[in-house]
Amino acid sequence: MTTNQSIDPSAAALLPVAKKQGISTVWDRHKAMQPQCGFGQLGVCCRICWKGPCRVDPFGDGPQVGICGANADTIVARNVIRMIAAGAASHSEHGRHIALALLGVAKGELPAYQIRDEQKLRSVAAKLGINSEGKEIAAIAEEIALASLEDFRNQDHDKPCNWIASALTAKRLERLAGLHVLPHNIDAVITQIMARTHVGCDSDPVNLILGGIKGALADFDGMCLATELSDAVFGTPSPVVTAANLGVIKEGAVNIAVHGHNPLLSEIVCDVALLMDDEARKAGAKDGINIIGICCTGNEVMVRHGIPLATNYLSQELALITGAVDAMVVDVQCIMPSVSEIGACFHTEIITTMDDNKITGARHVRFREETAVENARQIVGFAIDAFKRRDPLRVNIPDFKQTAIVGFGTEAIMGALGAINAEDPLKPLIDNIANGNIRGIALFAGCNNTQVAQDSSFVTIAKKLAKNNVLLLATGCGAGSFAKHGLMSQEATDEYAGESLKAVLTAIGTAAGLNGPLPLVLHMGSCVDNSRAVEVAGAVANRLGVDLDQLPLVASAPEAMSEKAVAIGTWSVALGIPTHLGIMPQITGSAMVTELLTETAKELFGGYFMVELDPNQAADKLLTVIDERRKALGI
Amino acid sequence: MTTNQSIDPSAAALLPVAKKQGISTVWDRHKAMQPQCGFGQLGVCCRICWKGPCRVDPFGDGPQVGICGANADTIVARNVIRMIAAGAASHSEHGRHIALALLGVAKGELPAYQIRDEQKLRSVAAKLGINSEGKEIAAIAEEIALASLEDFRNQDHDKPCNWIASALTAKRLERLAGLHVLPHNIDAVITQIMARTHVGCDSDPVNLILGGIKGALADFDGMCLATELSDAVFGTPSPVVTAANLGVIKEGAVNIAVHGHNPLLSEIVCDVALLMDDEARKAGAKDGINIIGICCTGNEVMVRHGIPLATNYLSQELALITGAVDAMVVDVQCIMPSVSEIGACFHTEIITTMDDNKITGARHVRFREETAVENARQIVGFAIDAFKRRDPLRVNIPDFKQTAIVGFGTEAIMGALGAINAEDPLKPLIDNIANGNIRGIALFAGCNNTQVAQDSSFVTIAKKLAKNNVLLLATGCGAGSFAKHGLMSQEATDEYAGESLKAVLTAIGTAAGLNGPLPLVLHMGSCVDNSRAVEVAGAVANRLGVDLDQLPLVASAPEAMSEKAVAIGTWSVALGIPTHLGIMPQITGSAMVTELLTETAKELFGGYFMVELDPNQAADKLLTVIDERRKALGI
Repeated sequence: MTTNQSIDPSAAALLPVAKKQGISTVWDRHKAMQPQCGFGQLGVCCRICWKGPCRVDPFGDGPQVGICGANADTIVARNVIRMIAAGAASHSEHGRHIALALLGVAKGELPAYQIRDEQKLRSVAAKLGINSEGKEIAAIAEEIALASLEDFRNQDHDKPCNWIASALTAKRLERLAGLHVLPHNIDAVITQIMARTHVGCDSDPVNLILGGIKGALADFDGMCLATELSDAVFGTPSPVVTAANLGVIKEGAVNIAVHGHNPLLSEIVCDVALLMDDEARKAGAKDGINIIGICCTGNEVMVRHGIPLATNYLSQELALITGAVDAMVVDVQCIMPSVSEIGACFHTEIITTMDDNKITGARHVRFREETAVENARQIVGFAIDAFKRRDPLRVNIPDFKQTAIVGFGTEAIMGALGAINAEDPLKPLIDNIANGNIRGIALFAGCNNTQVAQDSSFVTIAKKLAKNNVLLLATGCGAGSFAKHGLMSQEATDEYAGESLKAVLTAIGTAAGLNGPLPLVLHMGSCVDNSRAVEVAGAVANRLGVDLDQLPLVASAPEAMSEKAVAIGTWSVALGIPTHLGIMPQITGSAMVTELLTETAKELFGGYFMVELDPNQAADKLLTVIDERRKALGI
Repeated sequence: MTTNQSIDPSAAALLPVAKKQGISTVWDRHKAMQPQCGFGQLGVCCRICWKGPCRVDPFGDGPQVGICGANADTIVARNVIRMIAAGAASHSEHGRHIALALLGVAKGELPAYQIRDEQKLRSVAAKLGINSEGKEIAAIAEEIALASLEDFRNQDHDKPCNWIASALTAKRLERLAGLHVLPHNIDAVITQIMARTHVGCDSDPVNLILGGIKGALADFDGMCLATELSDAVFGTPSPVVTAANLGVIKEGAVNIAVHGHNPLLSEIVCDVALLMDDEARKAGAKDGINIIGICCTGNEVMVRHGIPLATNYLSQELALITGAVDAMVVDVQCIMPSVSEIGACFHTEIITTMDDNKITGARHVRFREETAVENARQIVGFAIDAFKRRDPLRVNIPDFKQTAIVGFGTEAIMGALGAINAEDPLKPLIDNIANGNIRGIALFAGCNNTQVAQDSSFVTIAKKLAKNNVLLLATGCGAGSFAKHGLMSQEATDEYAGESLKAVLTAIGTAAGLNGPLPLVLHMGSCVDNSRAVEVAGAVANRLGVDLDQLPLVASAPEAMSEKAVAIGTWSVALGIPTHLGIMPQITGSAMVTELLTETAKELFGGYFMVELDPNQAADKLLTVIDERRKALGI
């Protein structure tokens, strides 16, 4: 059963409960907000100075320029690159946080954390050109942390960031350098975007967009370092069987939802929960403590430890409406402010943990790496106390959950391929792409958006591509979507994969010891982990001696919403990847900016945005692009 | 003669010319934009994610929260702190540019630049705790440059930026540290603001505003370093007699307007113009080359070299409509994109020079410090060529100009005071404040805004305060306003100053060798130079053993417009200064944020915003505040 708001059966089950209890959800608020401001939707509203607000009349009858003289092209370009700056800032703050934690670990200052994957640490060192031979792990970690922090410190505009320089093909780096869009310092590039979009600064839309692309590549850099350093500290994902959707909430357990994006606290919550399980049982929870994930903090602990995923962005409120979540512990990003009000309608403790991310009405536990265990203990304690206050009569846990095999980072994919050809793991992948068994590769990323029935575009496009033998990768809320809907299972491969894809997935899965095929969609991690897909693609490109923009590789963010998604989509384009958007980007008030991002970008970068709101047609267009790429490669 | 758009007589003279020629100006565009969006004006429009745009209904009938659940308080707070981030970014990019140039000078890589004020360099070193004894100037310069760049590089959140730590009273630093708002790294704080305002992050308005205040203090830090390092490289301002308003344009000269904010290029244009004067004369310009300033690039060269100021922000287009500007050379900030179209209506070359600040249709000369002289030569050459194409029949230079004595940086003020008491220069100032001859001090800053008849609020408030014996300081477009209207003259002191103030200004001016009083308003420099006023105030506070929030000192931005002004106003509040705004800040959609900034701030910081649109009443309120402060001090 689905609704026109979501195809998630949990939504169909819980929205009537919410209605009955007088609790409004994101879908109610979306409805109440209609009609939305058309100027904003077109990107032609400028609030950059207090002479404004200004709005360009899209019908041509009213003003065509703002009070300062900026036209629609300038206004649209400024607005969208500020979104990119905010997206880059978000990922990079996350990255910096991990890098500083790694430095603390290296210095022995953070007993709660260790280097859980020394091999990964050494491979990161090699990637960054750091000689780790004969060095202690702590010394290597320190050098890596400092090299990573240098990406926030370097003031030489001509020296690209360390991480991006290590992550891309030589050809791509050369191309980006030629266009002056290689970032030299993440923070400085964000500052530069904010400065150039100040009133009376850059008003050339092409120049602005190129500045935004540099910001998006800074986002990529921050993402690479966040992902790789997290692997070193918390462990590199490997395939694990778990479950997804709200049915993972257990009536008999103290349910603690970890929500947000940064694994620094949630990892410790997982550790501490094990230690405090008895305490929960003593409080009457026969099933002890049950950690469940929401959004990308959920994805982080899911791909590393098999923690079940409760849900993705748009239905985070529904987790609370089950009445059985005892604490929702949030860190950063994509946490609806409404959760504190809804939590207060129940017994649920909403606990913010980051000083820069508070919510009015929520309890704040000031998380510090130095006191992580103590903080986590306190949080779990609050959850146990809340459990005691839970009203069993208000518990509504939908009986929906799907098995999901997750944890396919680069290493896991290479590992699975290595089971077929240990000497040359890429060969089976490349051979199968070349012979057409795998027609192409699609990476699904991005959010949910109330403009699309939740998850529907993800699922529709994925099924059609799978049927046409496209290998599917996913991160973030896209991955959450597929996990919830059972597309990360072996059964889904049997049911939805085209014959040749099925054969390949079965051969690899069987060789890798999975007793059957790989899942239909490979879960690569949280949205900050999109860099993993680039790593795999880069390896394939290098092996073939081509650049990323020649591979039969596409990306799709069919339900994109956040500024992070805008940044990710933009670097995807800049890296040469045709990138589908299933919602209308707020740039169409400028024909020039629209053309720049959907057409001119192709000449400059090889990648470009494709906007198609109909998921069936989107799938067809993605297939066409894949075929074009194949043809150009002569395969 | 004035209009309801501007009290500048040049506007009254030239607006009919513009109309006749079918050229629309900022005032036409303002009119065309009416009515402006009320949601934006109240700050309750959110365009932070693509679920939106969302708008909170100020009348309470429609939605009270956005789709994510953010309410008006959150939305308003997020919007305004992003403005602060952009303001801080702008000033700090400017500061970084100067710091990197200083480093280049120190390394002997930039022959076009020197350390023009070695004494200032040494005093900066002392301020930053750098031992300069026995060191070569280049070595000191390098250490200072690196210490300044460290304010963009430091990753230790507990260590405040070097410049702010050196610039404030110990009491103020302690207070700000206690509130966790001392910035540790300018770029990082900007990134932090962009990240915490991403969808689903910080939604606590108090927390958000405190984060914004940290950003504003980062703005202050960037401003201090930009100002002080510029003095070292280009010379510290000292009193100089010059002129202001469009009458400074010379019919018989090649007129080159330098416009924007960053002196790095304009300084060299001034040097090169002298060398190319003959070339201009050969091209038929009997008066050679005439450099004129607009906005703060204008203020920079005005206070250092007595270059006349053509105009301030709102009438920049009018300079072009004189038909006698041959080139307008722009760098960064507050350059209306319309100038390229208007320039094209005439013979005027509009020349952009910074790669991050281009204007469609303008000529771009890629300025580099390494090639500054060559770039400047090229620019002057373009101006001379354009002069040859000038149509004499279209020349309309209004016959308005006013004498202005400008260049009152901290050192100049102390120098003038030192003429009365060489041993203890602050004593005459403090004595006269204590005895009431000087009732208080007011700093005027900020922009022009089409919501106010240009310059009218500046002039009205200043005259009333002067009559009531308040000592007046000004920067930026405020300073431009006073210069244009003759308030930076000795005659203005005679005409408008209250008796006791007049006596003090006359005593100091005479002692300082000015053959008469100091001007009524002391021109401290460009808008980035607001830090100078804090330096003087800090010296007074330290001398009295009090903090800034106890001094009878107020600030006023009666015609504020830009995000930089939002940042400046906010740090002014955070430093303890009651700060008047003469336009309605776009925060009033949130009673909480409004109260926070206008009332609660007083408890936290001692400073607060005062909003009063009527300039006469604003003056009265400022006087009341001054008297309150006097009373509290027992004077």
